Amino acid sequence: MTQDTSQQLPLAGITVVDLTRVLSGPYCTMMLADLGARVIKIENPDGGDDSRQVGPFVDGESAYFASINRNKQSIALDLKRAEDRAVLDRMLESADVLVENFRAGVMERLGYTWEALHARHPRLVFASISGFGQTGPYRNRPAYDMVVQAMGGLMSVTGEAGGNPARVGVSIGDIGAGLYATIGIQSALLKRVRTGLGERVDISMLDCQVALLENPIARYSATGNVPAPLGTRHPSITPFDMFATGDGFIVIAVGNDALFAKLCEALDRPEWIRDARFANVPARNAHHVALKAVLEERLGHDTTAHWEAALEAAGVPHGPLNGVPQILDNPHVAAREMLLDIGIGDDKTLRVAGNPVKVGSAGALRDVRNPPALDRDREALLREFGNNA
Amino acid sequence: MTQDTSQQLPLAGITVVDLTRVLSGPYCTMMLADLGARVIKIENPDGGDDSRQVGPFVDGESAYFASINRNKQSIALDLKRAEDRAVLDRMLESADVLVENFRAGVMERLGYTWEALHARHPRLVFASISGFGQTGPYRNRPAYDMVVQAMGGLMSVTGEAGGNPARVGVSIGDIGAGLYATIGIQSALLKRVRTGLGERVDISMLDCQVALLENPIARYSATGNVPAPLGTRHPSITPFDMFATGDGFIVIAVGNDALFAKLCEALDRPEWIRDARFANVPARNAHHVALKAVLEERLGHDTTAHWEAALEAAGVPHGPLNGVPQILDNPHVAAREMLLDIGIGDDKTLRVAGNPVKVGSAGALRDVRNPPALDRDREALLREFGNNA
Repeated sequence: MTQDTSQQLPLAGITVVDLTRVLSGPYCTMMLADLGARVIKIENPDGGDDSRQVGPFVDGESAYFASINRNKQSIALDLKRAEDRAVLDRMLESADVLVENFRAGVMERLGYTWEALHARHPRLVFASISGFGQTGPYRNRPAYDMVVQAMGGLMSVTGEAGGNPARVGVSIGDIGAGLYATIGIQSALLKRVRTGLGERVDISMLDCQVALLENPIARYSATGNVPAPLGTRHPSITPFDMFATGDGFIVIAVGNDALFAKLCEALDRPEWIRDARFANVPARNAHHVALKAVLEERLGHDTTAHWEAALEAAGVPHGPLNGVPQILDNPHVAAREMLLDIGIGDDKTLRVAGNPVKVGSAGALRDVRNPPALDRDREALLREFGNNA
Repeated sequence: MTQDTSQQLPLAGITVVDLTRVLSGPYCTMMLADLGARVIKIENPDGGDDSRQVGPFVDGESAYFASINRNKQSIALDLKRAEDRAVLDRMLESADVLVENFRAGVMERLGYTWEALHARHPRLVFASISGFGQTGPYRNRPAYDMVVQAMGGLMSVTGEAGGNPARVGVSIGDIGAGLYATIGIQSALLKRVRTGLGERVDISMLDCQVALLENPIARYSATGNVPAPLGTRHPSITPFDMFATGDGFIVIAVGNDALFAKLCEALDRPEWIRDARFANVPARNAHHVALKAVLEERLGHDTTAHWEAALEAAGVPHGPLNGVPQILDNPHVAAREMLLDIGIGDDKTLRVAGNPVKVGSAGALRDVRNPPALDRDREALLREFGNNA
């Protein structure tokens, strides 16, 4: 990244000391790095971030690790050794943010309590991401994505109607926590502009699952009906579902009566507009089985491509069901610069997801530094923060 | 909210003019409001935010709307009428952020281009959330959650192994975009501290789905294998799954060899530690079917509660499968203040998800103002921003 473009990035000038590993924390610090912060990743000398051992591998390097650790520096420090702690302490003198995702209590046992950190570095924002947060009866329990997806209820509303609960196919327990943590850190930095003081940010993965569950909680609270998996159907808007066509599937998302009328016209079935069963959202919700049956009967007469063109012309929200290969081939995804090629292994490249937070000139976000090998930046960082710095 | 506690919130002093409706935008502005920003919600006079018509209802008021519109003011303005536009223009004189989630092009047709807004209000951050973003070949296409969940690939990796793709049971297409938008807006506010100038923030729901898909994209890129639904199993860590017990289900999440050894001890099966099939993560991934079989054989001999206690004592990450009722009853969720009671209908209350972004004293985030009736704050807002203001 050249000095010029990096200065255009919104978080230029912010330094983040990053003790995180695996996913929730590294996802958060990748967001901060993509937005221009300097991220110094501190890894344990005994193999570094656990995710370096998680496959698949390219020439022995973890694609899992590579996907979420671009634009970071790496140094290996043993936080139980005095000289290594001294390096961390010197980093914290000028850092804006410290992020960690150890189990609650670990930082305190290492001597890094909020009180001590705040006394020594009053401007430092100290953010923790943990399974259950720094308070509450479960605070010392370990957690992973799967655990909070199950405990937080998201699995209970995902999957086939009448079938087993399904895990969301990405680690939304971790990524969700990483996103809320990024929001918490930035809000604390904004408060610091007013007060001159850092803040404690306490993110619980389980809390974040509950926050994502806002609609099922409100529905249950209003009705007493327990939300359950519904396959591809929306719980309170119809038709908002995936439908079989003559040669595949199409998603149709009709959120109001005007769009429903356009859909009926596009399918050459204007009589459905005046059908009392389909007159408005509550009526369509009540008759969702009948509506799906007549829609699939009609859609079965032609191909997905045909219906895509017809719905496109009519302005009805719709879309094909894409797998990962289709996304990597999609012209719009490419135009939005949502795929990055990063270096991995012996001069190979790995295609990874880009940054969806487009602020100002998207071009400024384009440059990317490869994910670091363990301890790659030791020499430079010790010159800056070492004993003789 | 009293003046005292609201001043402790991180975004106190920030004013957001909110043209958003339904979900992605209102979720974003709820986050900003929960963190202390003043949010002025501008609704169309003809019924207001579409989500006011989406059920379920409590005394005729939408629980969907109520869940994500707390802590906001409401005024009805017709942006095609000159006197109503004048009110908006006066609000923008002192606002920090303008957020909208119309289809791309609508704001421009109303005369609110980025260039015009930036010339007139150089400090204003202007954020747009749309289905496909402000650029690229799909920019004018309409979208909803279901569409981007399908097009963005998340449905292709969610659901039963070998079964149909499933929608994530919450509107992660909208909520994801709302979270990334919150990050973009805050980063632009932080940049403004340096430059004195507002920024254009351009969030595409499809981009955000691609960003959430980071791991499947990296896996496909590394191996060429197309990621598919896996039920409840993690794609690259084993055992990381839901398992049947004697009376229900338990999730076990074992991310490394040390935890696997603890699991084997807790189940009184130490011999599995030395079983070559289960020696490390790659071996366990290769033998996930065999491992699940022996685990379920063992777990079937006792209850979920028994195994929860055993795994708790051993320090193995695990958890029960909770539905929404269990979450509303959970002591830890309550201790974390992750449920709020807000007023709805004729003096009823609705329980909704709280704010997971805990910054500083969590108590400061506790107070909540009820979601507004359409145009509730007209008089006060016209006194402040009307013709005679």
